[in-house]
Formats: sequence, structure tokens, C-alpha cells
Amino acid sequence: MNESQILARLEELGIELPAAPKPVAAYIPVVVSGSTAYVAGQVPMVDGQLLYPGHLGAQVSVEEGAVAAKRAALQALSALREALGSLDRLRRLVQVIVYIAASPDFTEHPRVANGASEFLVEVLGEDGKHARAAVGMSSLPLGASVEVQVTAEVDPA
Amino acid sequence: MNESQILARLEELGIELPAAPKPVAAYIPVVVSGSTAYVAGQVPMVDGQLLYPGHLGAQVSVEEGAVAAKRAALQALSALREALGSLDRLRRLVQVIVYIAASPDFTEHPRVANGASEFLVEVLGEDGKHARAAVGMSSLPLGASVEVQVTAEVDPA
Amino acid sequence: MNESQILARLEELGIELPAAPKPVAAYIPVVVSGSTAYVAGQVPMVDGQLLYPGHLGAQVSVEEGAVAAKRAALQALSALREALGSLDRLRRLVQVIVYIAASPDFTEHPRVANGASEFLVEVLGEDGKHARAAVGMSSLPLGASVEVQVTAEVDPA
Repeated sequence: MNESQILARLEELGIELPAAPKPVAAYIPVVVSGSTAYVAGQVPMVDGQLLYPGHLGAQVSVEEGAVAAKRAALQALSALREALGSLDRLRRLVQVIVYIAASPDFTEHPRVANGASEFLVEVLGEDGKHARAAVGMSSLPLGASVEVQVTAEVDPA
Repeated sequence: MNESQILARLEELGIELPAAPKPVAAYIPVVVSGSTAYVAGQVPMVDGQLLYPGHLGAQVSVEEGAVAAKRAALQALSALREALGSLDRLRRLVQVIVYIAASPDFTEHPRVANGASEFLVEVLGEDGKHARAAVGMSSLPLGASVEVQVTAEVDPA
Repeated sequence: MNESQILARLEELGIELPAAPKPVAAYIPVVVSGSTAYVAGQVPMVDGQLLYPGHLGAQVSVEEGAVAAKRAALQALSALREALGSLDRLRRLVQVIVYIAASPDFTEHPRVANGASEFLVEVLGEDGKHARAAVGMSSLPLGASVEVQVTAEVDPA
């Protein structure tokens, strides 16, 4: 899909692409090496506030965690667009790792991660399909419930 | 090593290659980008049941965790074979991340991860050697004790 | 930057490059695949002893965790130099994942990870900038507080 198709799809879904994330520390949001783009881990933010902080299996429901994962995935798309100049250079996603702050007895990581995965396929179609790992963390930056790390194949600069 | 050598080696070891894993959610088991194959995180399953669920440092022993890690690594090989058409296209492994559900006081992650690493070298020889990270998680999908994420170098399609 | 510039920069900073890490298990410290070098996860060691073992949010302060992360990043540089023959072959860093053993209520992962990130940029300049994920773990090998996983772009062999 090209950028105008992707933006049209987001508009159909009623989703606005947020401003590209700024790094909160001494690193950069995206590095492109050859035809691979590595996006920094995204924690879900809305208007400068964490979306659904806390742990799955405790303060955060599976449904809320899935919404947080979707938001973080959207931010990764925005970071890619900013770094690439245009999503026309995005060939496809390759890997998504969904880190989930979770209690020791939590087991529904796949349903939380689906919030990111299903959204990416909804927006990017076949190009959005990815290999995935979903794992439970003791804690995440700022108290986030979810952090999403995306790797993509792109047209080299 | 080529596919027939790998299959012969598995047979010598008395190990049957399981059916390729099906995704449990909205993602795909393997993405090939250029000469890199990203395999989705594998949790160890036998006959549709989790092998040794629970946490290291609690319900699951180091020996059981190592067996679980070996099983997950075997599933990653099966996923690679299915995605590549043949293991003849597998050049070598590059990276293995072993996520281990573990109590806060657990320290023997390397011995658990060796269940995967030693098996991969046993089957693939030099081609099986990899850079590795072994880390302790609060929890894993379905209650798994281990999740193994493999990245390989392959002949491009 | 070339190797002599990097070594001069370390000397200015009063930092000695430690001996390249030896694997503690059945894996190798660095795999180079095409122009990508995958470094195994590093736990911070000084004279054969873990530096600042324990958990952030408990026994280990943010400042100590940052020093541990810096040490692990230094070991990754040493591993890269050993594997590449010379840091002249290092083009740039691409990704750094900082795994932090942390209590469930810990939130300052970025400050700990900055110990690695800021050091890498201090030594490598623009070439040291990277995409990053910082995440909290239930536990790490040997009881480490931090494990750092580096991926770099290099001149192919």
C-alpha cells in the first residue's frame, strides 16, 4: 500500500495519526539500516498522558491493554512516516514485539497483543502481517501497561 | 547443512519434527525480509498442551525449563521449514532470545536457555550457533514457562 | 568514526576496553549476517563479578543501574571489536534493548537505560545513536540488574 492508501484507511477508521513521538531519552525514534527500519519501543500516550497505565491482571483489563497496544502501534507508524519522509517507502512490517506489564498469573498476552496486530493488518493489509512475540514484564517505563517494538522492511534511502 | 542432513540428524536424535505451528492470533509464524527470517515467539506445545507451564524458581525445575526451551526451539525449526519450503534455504541461525517466566529470585536463566541453544547446535552444527539473550519474565502467554524467538539467515526467495 | 578515534575517545573518558566477553553457555558473543551484527545480551561484569546485582526499585538505585547499563554497553563494544577484528568495520549502532530487573512499581527504566545510551553516543558520536527499548524484567541471569542487547550495522566480512 502507498501512503495515500494508508492515510485513507486511517481516515475510514476514524483514526488520526498522532504527531511523531519524540525520544524521552538519549536515543532516536527510528534507525534505518539497509532495508530494515528499527522503531524504538513505544509506550501509548494520548495528549502527553499515558493511556491505561498499570498491570494486566491487576488495574488494567484485557480490553484496555488491547487499546493501549493499538495506540502504541499507531505511534510506531507515525514514527516510521516521520523517519522515512513518506509511508510510500514502507514495504511491509516484519516483526512486532509486544511487551506487556503483567502480574505473574496473567495468561492472556495474545489478546492484548492482538490490539496492535489486528490494527496493523487493518491499516496496512497484507503488508502489515508480522512475526510476533508477546511477553509479560514486571514493569515498563513510566508505569505503562504496554510497550510495542516494530521492525519494518523499507525502501533504502 | 542441507535439509536431508538436518532431518537425518533429528532422526538420529530420535526427535520428530512437529507440525508447523499455527498462529494463535493475528500474526504469521515467519516473515522473510531479504536474507533474514524472523520467527514468531514459540511457546512449547505437545499435542495441543503446554509443556511444563508455570514459573522457574517455583513450579518448574531448571531441567524441565530446559526441555521446554528445546521443544520451543524445535517448533521454530518446523516453522522455518514450512515458511522456506525446505531447510535447504536455511543458511544459519543468527539470534535466539529465550524469554523465561521466572520468580524474582531466579538466577539460572542460562541453564534453561541452554536447552534451546545446545539442541540447535546439536541439530544444525556450526550453522546453529547464535547470539543469545536469556531474560526473566513476569508471565508468558497461556502460562508458558518459556518462549523462544529465533532469527535466521536464509537464501532469499 | 574509525577504531583509533573510538579508542582515543575511550582513553579521554578514562575508560579501558575490557577483555571481550566469553559466552557463559552454548552460544557465541556476536553473529554477523550480511551487514548486521547481533551481539549477545551482556550482563555487567567487573573482574569476574556482577556489577550491582539485584532489582531496580529494591536493592539497586537508578544511578547504580545506569552504571551497570554503561558497563554492559562497553562489553558489547568489546565483543564487537573482537568479532569484527577492528572497530573500523563498525558503521553504526542500530538497536539497543535494555532489559532491567525491576520491581513491579518501578517506573524509571529510561534513566537506567540512559546509562547505556548516553555512553554509546559519548564514545561513538552520531554512529552511536540507536533505536531503543527499555523494559522491566522479573529477573536476569546470575541475578544481574541489567542486560543489554546491541545490534549494529557493519561492513560485511
